[in-house]
Amino acid sequence: MKLQVAMDVLTTEAALALAAQVAPHVDIIELGTPLIKAEGLSAVTAIKAAHPDKIVFADLKTMDAGELEAGIAFAAGADLVTVLGTAGDSTIIGAVAAATKHDKGIVVDLIGVADKVTRAREVIALGAQFVEMHAGLDEQAEPGFSFEKLLSQGETAKVPFSLAGGVSIATIKSVQRAGASVAVAGGAIYGAEDPAAAAAALRAAII
Amino acid sequence: MKLQVAMDVLTTEAALALAAQVAPHVDIIELGTPLIKAEGLSAVTAIKAAHPDKIVFADLKTMDAGELEAGIAFAAGADLVTVLGTAGDSTIIGAVAAATKHDKGIVVDLIGVADKVTRAREVIALGAQFVEMHAGLDEQAEPGFSFEKLLSQGETAKVPFSLAGGVSIATIKSVQRAGASVAVAGGAIYGAEDPAAAAAALRAAII
Repeated sequence: MKLQVAMDVLTTEAALALAAQVAPHVDIIELGTPLIKAEGLSAVTAIKAAHPDKIVFADLKTMDAGELEAGIAFAAGADLVTVLGTAGDSTIIGAVAAATKHDKGIVVDLIGVADKVTRAREVIALGAQFVEMHAGLDEQAEPGFSFEKLLSQGETAKVPFSLAGGVSIATIKSVQRAGASVAVAGGAIYGAEDPAAAAAALRAAII
Repeated sequence: MKLQVAMDVLTTEAALALAAQVAPHVDIIELGTPLIKAEGLSAVTAIKAAHPDKIVFADLKTMDAGELEAGIAFAAGADLVTVLGTAGDSTIIGAVAAATKHDKGIVVDLIGVADKVTRAREVIALGAQFVEMHAGLDEQAEPGFSFEKLLSQGETAKVPFSLAGGVSIATIKSVQRAGASVAVAGGAIYGAEDPAAAAAALRAAII
């Protein structure tokens, strides 16, 4: 199982500083959606230039113009780009076409999808590299949010998936047991007093 | 009925050039999602600085972190910010909270929502200023796309709405007849040989 850090910071400078701290302990470096909207794709280029050996994940959460949005993100240096699972199939197909052209990959973010298991299978059939079983920051704050339900949806879908939304040192072993290809940690790393140590501890918990 | 130009260009420079051409003929200047992702919120600031008398619409298509994303866009100069109708209610509520704080507005983009009429009423009740009855660029290219269906959903919902996806000189009168508060024209303006003349013609078609 790979470890992905979700950098939910708002400036390229803060992202570069965080990436420099945690890169030795992670496989995938994610630029969060608010960061990309705030700074533009130059943030992606800066992170890839600083960490050419890492997989750079641009969380575009594309809802339309799939081929265009994925294409400009790959051209800027992204290795993986997200499209929303709530987007239409033609948007996902367009994004996959851009990924094929650039020899990169599309990840479909299932945030907001009611039946994540069915949609996961559909988008893998459309050419997504993997799906993200994802509870957003807003959803995690809602009463009744269940991390276990998210996990079991990944386990049930039987397609390659990452898990995002509540990954921490307390939960990462269960994420691996559920069969996730990637565990995505955000606040558990960037919110820690020592992000490098937090990333190293998460890494050490992966067997 | 107001006229909105959707600037689906990819650089701040191109957006400033287009806005300078069409601003005299439109009420609302929209920065498209790919433009914001490519250039960041500095593009919003640049357009607002150049056109302080116009309503600047930042098409963020927010899916998570509603209060954060809307907040940084308003701080950058946006007057209206979009949240996706497929987002959870807590995301829309968060974005509305940011709008209230900044004395600005949230528009909910109903792209990808199956039952647009029901969702339109729900999000207006949550505090959205209006909804966008929207067929995306990818959806418009799909076989079987129906502009009339989009129009009739706006008419049926009986809440304030804008219409985006196929607005042209041939259709704008029907958009007004359906009761839209705003007609959003993209390709019909930026794809025209003379964008200023195209915007002026659309404006002149509004009674």
